Amino acid sequence: MKTLEVDLGTRSYPIFIGQGLLGQAERVKPYIKGEKVFIVTNETIAPLYLESALTAFSEYETIYTILPDGEKYKNLTFLNQIFDDLLLNHFDRHTTLVALGGGVIGDMTGFAAACYQRGVPFIQVPTTLLAQVDSSVGGKTGVNHKLGKNMIGAFHQPQCVVIDTNTLTTLDDRQFSAGLAEVVKYGLINDAEFFTWLEENVEALLARNPEKLAYAIQRCCQDKADIVAQDERESGVRALLNLGHTFGHAIETGMGYGVCLHGEGVAIGMVLAADLSARLGLLAQEEVTRIQDLLEKMRLPTHIPEQLSGERIQALMKVDKKALNGCIRLILLQGIGQAFMTDNYTNEALEATLAAAYNKKGMAE
Amino acid sequence: MKTLEVDLGTRSYPIFIGQGLLGQAERVKPYIKGEKVFIVTNETIAPLYLESALTAFSEYETIYTILPDGEKYKNLTFLNQIFDDLLLNHFDRHTTLVALGGGVIGDMTGFAAACYQRGVPFIQVPTTLLAQVDSSVGGKTGVNHKLGKNMIGAFHQPQCVVIDTNTLTTLDDRQFSAGLAEVVKYGLINDAEFFTWLEENVEALLARNPEKLAYAIQRCCQDKADIVAQDERESGVRALLNLGHTFGHAIETGMGYGVCLHGEGVAIGMVLAADLSARLGLLAQEEVTRIQDLLEKMRLPTHIPEQLSGERIQALMKVDKKALNGCIRLILLQGIGQAFMTDNYTNEALEATLAAAYNKKGMAE
Repeated sequence: MKTLEVDLGTRSYPIFIGQGLLGQAERVKPYIKGEKVFIVTNETIAPLYLESALTAFSEYETIYTILPDGEKYKNLTFLNQIFDDLLLNHFDRHTTLVALGGGVIGDMTGFAAACYQRGVPFIQVPTTLLAQVDSSVGGKTGVNHKLGKNMIGAFHQPQCVVIDTNTLTTLDDRQFSAGLAEVVKYGLINDAEFFTWLEENVEALLARNPEKLAYAIQRCCQDKADIVAQDERESGVRALLNLGHTFGHAIETGMGYGVCLHGEGVAIGMVLAADLSARLGLLAQEEVTRIQDLLEKMRLPTHIPEQLSGERIQALMKVDKKALNGCIRLILLQGIGQAFMTDNYTNEALEATLAAAYNKKGMAE
Repeated sequence: MKTLEVDLGTRSYPIFIGQGLLGQAERVKPYIKGEKVFIVTNETIAPLYLESALTAFSEYETIYTILPDGEKYKNLTFLNQIFDDLLLNHFDRHTTLVALGGGVIGDMTGFAAACYQRGVPFIQVPTTLLAQVDSSVGGKTGVNHKLGKNMIGAFHQPQCVVIDTNTLTTLDDRQFSAGLAEVVKYGLINDAEFFTWLEENVEALLARNPEKLAYAIQRCCQDKADIVAQDERESGVRALLNLGHTFGHAIETGMGYGVCLHGEGVAIGMVLAADLSARLGLLAQEEVTRIQDLLEKMRLPTHIPEQLSGERIQALMKVDKKALNGCIRLILLQGIGQAFMTDNYTNEALEATLAAAYNKKGMAE
């Protein structure tokens, strides 16, 4: 097992990474305050791992909620179901919430913990690659609004993150690929060496080689922990983690939550960011091609779905949280491993990027 | 004008108290970040003060939402209406929210600010006595759940609090009396001298004498600021501010939100706390009578509404946030001005208090 630390002063916490951690109750005991544990999971994960989790927490008074699976349920209505169950069972503020699932479950459970009785502790137990390498670390929690992704939320750090890499054995191929998109993101932001490693190991990762996967997860978590420790509330460097996300969120929202997976939106968004960077003379065309090739080898979409117009995407981008007084700031690339934030681009270049990014190989199929 | 300071390190902020502050735009300018202001108010306050507020913020891009008036609208559904309007108008995270109204508007606007795009700044402009002396100060924000009051919320401190005492001239008598209940609370908690002052000045307060009112508001805000500075997130002494609230919330929830005003619930709750304290030998019967007399002079209910059974109240008390592992901790009195928290009381004494507290003079009329 490997332990990383997210260094945030009084809100610091460990990330445990290893095989079979879900069955190791001793590991999480020091992180549970009080005598009640409330597990939030979904109908896909529950048949696979809920029993193990209940066994691990058997010495506590433990109950659970099973939500439907999918991004389209990440809203205030289903958040309220968590509150209903907590209150109906008289779970008071000395309860620890446990998020057992992917990014949607982690975001919703974390936000429920942030708001329930004005804040209770929670633990992240991510079961998808995407949640393990990205969304479970860093304290961003929230739900979607019909007009924009993650528009309602809080910064609320977990007590610890428990990554049992065995859970990846049951992840379906599409979800697995979506997670790889976030893995690639770390290479692009500030870790060119890791990007090259990914190019060399993409086949092994797709074959779910346990050692290669464990290495990639650790490296992503370390990269993320370093960035979050520098800038917990995203006033600076943390914004780089949104590479591909402003485009990606617009595509996700435009397609309807759940039609395009978050990682798929991010994959398309990273290609758009690379293309725009090339049009601005910041990135060589062969680097754009390297990025697109790697994502396609990972079985990810890299083009905008046909049914979504460029105008609609631009309109949706304007409601993104990264917008400042109406101007859309973007994360672009000066090279692989050299991301930066800017609003210094022309609308013509942006429109050219969007116009060029349609292809029958997109999400539409 | 008087300025008090809530001392919370980097989250410190001023409380401005005076006549006509609503028209003094210069006062709040330093506390507005960005160029957009979003005012949340209700249909009672809007015709009276919205125009003044819009004039005061005229140099910003300013829009507003008018919610229906009342505690029964303090829920996730109407909270979402605030998010709808923010997003439909492309108000980004560089927006300052302004709460123009009573406690419900303050709590909802503050919580919307805590959650919108994971946190934007807000300003409290309380227009009811209750909000001015209590709910606008201290950063507690939130909405109700059908199973309990304020169960969903956040600690989110405002940038400043602007108390224009002129707004009290338009407050209806019932709301004014409800505010006085929270005023009495500060005397009972730790300010016996103020309690005596209230007994001596109750007629002048009911006549809304501006000097007496200003003095009472300042004293309450100072008492609250001192307590909040010691214990922002209610891990200790701040809990004393909940005197009467565990009983009061149960009565409010049991009657249906809005039937019994918050201050009315607190008035009944303080009498119940005093009665229980007397049964436990902590408080003299004549002090219970003094408390009850003062509240009745303030035209507040002091008995449990007939239609609410003691069993129902006890059941509702168990879901209160102050419950610890199922045990209901209460704020009781060892004297006027000497509140303390305890779970050291018998169920028999509690039931006797509840049984004795029915009277045709209660809320039921």
